[in-house]
Amino acid sequence: MKASQFLISTLKEAPADAEVVSHKLMTRAGMIKKLGAGIYNYMPMGLRVIRKVEAIVREEMNRAGAIEVTMPVVQPAELWQETGRFEKMGPELLRIQDRHGRDFVIQPTSEEVVTDIARQEFKSYKQLPKNLYQIQTKFRDERRPRFGLMRGREFIMKDAYSFDKDRDSAQISYQTMREAYKRIFDRFGLQYRAVRADSGAIGGDLSEEFQVIASTGEDAIVYCPNSDYAANIEKAECLPPAGPRPAATMAMEKVATPGNSTCEAVAAQLGLPLSHTVKSLVLATDETNEAGEIVKTQVWLLLLRGDHEMNEIKVGKVEGLAGFRFATVGEIEAHFGCKPGYLGPIGLKQPVKLVVDREVAVMADWVCGANEEDFHITGVNFGRDLPEPTVVADLRNVVAGDKSPDGAGELAIERGIEIGHVFYLGTKYSRAMNATFLGDNGKPQHFEMGCYGIGVTRLPAAAVEQNHDERGMIWPDAIAPFTVVICPIGMGRSEAVKAEAEKLYAELLALGVDVILDDRDERPGAMLADWELIGVPHRVVLGDRGLKEGVVEYQARRDTEATKIAPSDVLAHLKAKLGL
Amino acid sequence: MKASQFLISTLKEAPADAEVVSHKLMTRAGMIKKLGAGIYNYMPMGLRVIRKVEAIVREEMNRAGAIEVTMPVVQPAELWQETGRFEKMGPELLRIQDRHGRDFVIQPTSEEVVTDIARQEFKSYKQLPKNLYQIQTKFRDERRPRFGLMRGREFIMKDAYSFDKDRDSAQISYQTMREAYKRIFDRFGLQYRAVRADSGAIGGDLSEEFQVIASTGEDAIVYCPNSDYAANIEKAECLPPAGPRPAATMAMEKVATPGNSTCEAVAAQLGLPLSHTVKSLVLATDETNEAGEIVKTQVWLLLLRGDHEMNEIKVGKVEGLAGFRFATVGEIEAHFGCKPGYLGPIGLKQPVKLVVDREVAVMADWVCGANEEDFHITGVNFGRDLPEPTVVADLRNVVAGDKSPDGAGELAIERGIEIGHVFYLGTKYSRAMNATFLGDNGKPQHFEMGCYGIGVTRLPAAAVEQNHDERGMIWPDAIAPFTVVICPIGMGRSEAVKAEAEKLYAELLALGVDVILDDRDERPGAMLADWELIGVPHRVVLGDRGLKEGVVEYQARRDTEATKIAPSDVLAHLKAKLGL
Repeated sequence: MKASQFLISTLKEAPADAEVVSHKLMTRAGMIKKLGAGIYNYMPMGLRVIRKVEAIVREEMNRAGAIEVTMPVVQPAELWQETGRFEKMGPELLRIQDRHGRDFVIQPTSEEVVTDIARQEFKSYKQLPKNLYQIQTKFRDERRPRFGLMRGREFIMKDAYSFDKDRDSAQISYQTMREAYKRIFDRFGLQYRAVRADSGAIGGDLSEEFQVIASTGEDAIVYCPNSDYAANIEKAECLPPAGPRPAATMAMEKVATPGNSTCEAVAAQLGLPLSHTVKSLVLATDETNEAGEIVKTQVWLLLLRGDHEMNEIKVGKVEGLAGFRFATVGEIEAHFGCKPGYLGPIGLKQPVKLVVDREVAVMADWVCGANEEDFHITGVNFGRDLPEPTVVADLRNVVAGDKSPDGAGELAIERGIEIGHVFYLGTKYSRAMNATFLGDNGKPQHFEMGCYGIGVTRLPAAAVEQNHDERGMIWPDAIAPFTVVICPIGMGRSEAVKAEAEKLYAELLALGVDVILDDRDERPGAMLADWELIGVPHRVVLGDRGLKEGVVEYQARRDTEATKIAPSDVLAHLKAKLGL
Repeated sequence: MKASQFLISTLKEAPADAEVVSHKLMTRAGMIKKLGAGIYNYMPMGLRVIRKVEAIVREEMNRAGAIEVTMPVVQPAELWQETGRFEKMGPELLRIQDRHGRDFVIQPTSEEVVTDIARQEFKSYKQLPKNLYQIQTKFRDERRPRFGLMRGREFIMKDAYSFDKDRDSAQISYQTMREAYKRIFDRFGLQYRAVRADSGAIGGDLSEEFQVIASTGEDAIVYCPNSDYAANIEKAECLPPAGPRPAATMAMEKVATPGNSTCEAVAAQLGLPLSHTVKSLVLATDETNEAGEIVKTQVWLLLLRGDHEMNEIKVGKVEGLAGFRFATVGEIEAHFGCKPGYLGPIGLKQPVKLVVDREVAVMADWVCGANEEDFHITGVNFGRDLPEPTVVADLRNVVAGDKSPDGAGELAIERGIEIGHVFYLGTKYSRAMNATFLGDNGKPQHFEMGCYGIGVTRLPAAAVEQNHDERGMIWPDAIAPFTVVICPIGMGRSEAVKAEAEKLYAELLALGVDVILDDRDERPGAMLADWELIGVPHRVVLGDRGLKEGVVEYQARRDTEATKIAPSDVLAHLKAKLGL
């Protein structure tokens, strides 16, 4: 490709609404162009990256035995009504009506349609296992789309769905996809982790996320540096406390803590480690009648160590706490006779249900609020100052330094961006849609399913979040818009430069290298800045002066300095760099 | 690919709603699966064809210097309001609202979005010409979708848009695309014609359709067998009549024609050629006020030769007849005092506007209705029996035998399916959206535009309409789902068959041939019928008996008999057939 025949359109300034670096840089480099909130044109430079991502995904999916199909973007509502998702999903499911007033949705995923295909196509266990995938446009009507391709409304996703005759076979299909995903992410050339994930709303009980490591990621990943244990912090399990509860050594005492409404402030005032304090969180669950009106509200008090964070997913799994909410200040004051910041489990005015984190259950001599403004209680002990807790559970997020569940050492935490997900779905969809095949026992059985997604347009954004510097993006070779850029300086004035540039360009094309020759005859500074912004991984600069001295300059995008090379050696040098 | 790892799903019966052969065969062959009216899953066998079509289109578009982008499926209404199409387009434009109540459309084409890109990206004439294209999902909410992929609601289209600095340059861009389209359609291996087309609603004044020739096509194509003249019958020009009007030789006479309400019946009764009769067509045009209420209706009488058909597009171009409709029976009876079937221009009760086809204007001694039930008039002549016509125009369709406008002989007519279209748009969209660049005179100028479509999912259907027999489809090599199928008979029982089949399979794969090995161990009859239905162009059958006799069977899909070949020669035979 020659630059004059391509569309290169760089900007000095990032758009005002761009909050994250990938959004800023991809817009400045002319890779994407906003059309509406969360809706982007994929411009030529960006589309090249997307197509390379698609090609790698397609190749590895095919290699893993998955079969490509394409399901419609506009899907009839009937199938979505069979699973109840037409009604249950929130407004992120874009619902539309056609000219005849019939209901449709724009696909956010395709479980319903693919299950409909399976129940028509796969009649016998002999046809199984099968895995159908598509690389197709999706739409999720996010309330607040932002971050460019990181959280768009319209996006491209690879979604695959496996159909198996039983759980054992489904586990093999799951593992096959998991291995394929590893190959895919290895080929992308990104740092990533496969982490255990909570399966959230889609359901199922075995689920892993593929997270691209980036300090700007919105997910926290817990991992063990000594093993391959890794989990989303939402899912990461805390081991039970190591030992039994120490004996009480202090008497209970009410102390004035004026204005100190946080555990940190109280610990500082008392000169105690934060881990000796206990924080009180007040939750509520509502019981509703058929009309959806609240008929009863239950208030809950959660106790967590002062240095720990509550994990909402774990809390939601405590019996009775599914669908919980945080209590209002009014509810808190009604139950505790005190404003938040000084709450505790002792001397309650109204009954609450007490739920205690496992770490708190083994604490002695702890500090909590006194249910009286500007007062706390020290030296609190279960069994003496309040009853032994009856509901004890893992309620908190893992913290760095916790023991790894696999016994391989202490856990660390880093941030990541989810770009892939493998799910074991079980029979959730096949039961809802009565999708069966004839088993080897001659009876209809529900398909065991898995689903497997990769955010094709999200991946380039994640790659940029991981790989950039102050000058621009840094693409891995495999998904770079171009692998090599040739920058001739003063091509319009120097026949020698033009000839040498065209020669190298032709040689690289002949080798099948994805090379661009910048024949725009831009000023050297602007030209080089463009390519550093765009982030092409390998660059050759040729100029008249250099050629007279017998050198051209090679620089990898991460190199801090150029390497001077004889023109006759540059092809060999590039071949070595590209592994050709 | 091995069949056991693919999804082969053939049906004995076509679906009840399938009216055309491509819909029937593609459904029976498991290439497409209906999800809703005009909405199809592209199944693995069908998707392979679509991907090959896409690849050829992409390669030739790139070769012609067009640059690939992807524009969103869901597009904000604002741009469509700029051109007025949001309001003007009928219900085939699917309009939707997002969760915030903002208006969007699902793209049926992308003139607005691409013009928006151009006005932001192309600031100077130095950046022109540019041609941007995409291969992307489209949606048109057809009132009565049918014919499978021939007229779906959701479909894949390649749409390209050229931007030029002036008309001359735009003509070059148009010709470049026209040449690229010829290369594309040549590569598809289909019989086609590039025909002049009426540009219809999209506008513009230079426009050609690429029509795949098929007797089942919905378009009539007029062509000259001795030259490259070809036009859609909607657009095909009738040359002016050769000579002047002959002198009148007959007296006007009213004759009883009881029950003969058609020109054919009257001609038969009178023993005259149909070309001596004149048919009277009654049209109406309505004038409306701002509230859209009809305030005045004008009635028109059109005269056409009895053996000619009215051309609605030509009629619509007559001054005053834009937006015409056919008159109602009530309107006809009020104006003519007579029911349809016996109408004519003589003895009118009410004034009508008379429009006369050029052929009628040079007729003498003709026959028309008497405006009295069961009566016609013979020997009618202009200037004597009624005034000389004042509005004379080309109102009719070309018929076979008409002279070609290029003087190369007589015209013939065949049927075709439109799968491509090249348009010169001029400044229609750039003016509506005020899309300008800085010209070489330093002043803002509107882009000269062209647009160029190919129906990527329609093309396979057209290919099948052209190429099929009673056993199934017959794909050209370039877009066949597989190029070669190896059918081993009794593979499960014979090691020799298995070994020979696997060997040939491996050899063809090594050559890069798109081959499928049917390892399903089906009964021979069912297996061969499947592949004839699917229409793979080259087939090799290996069986135990044949191998013992030292032969395998090669058969091209169009061959009536198989060719026996020594196993050692089959690879060379295939290479010759495939041009390798």
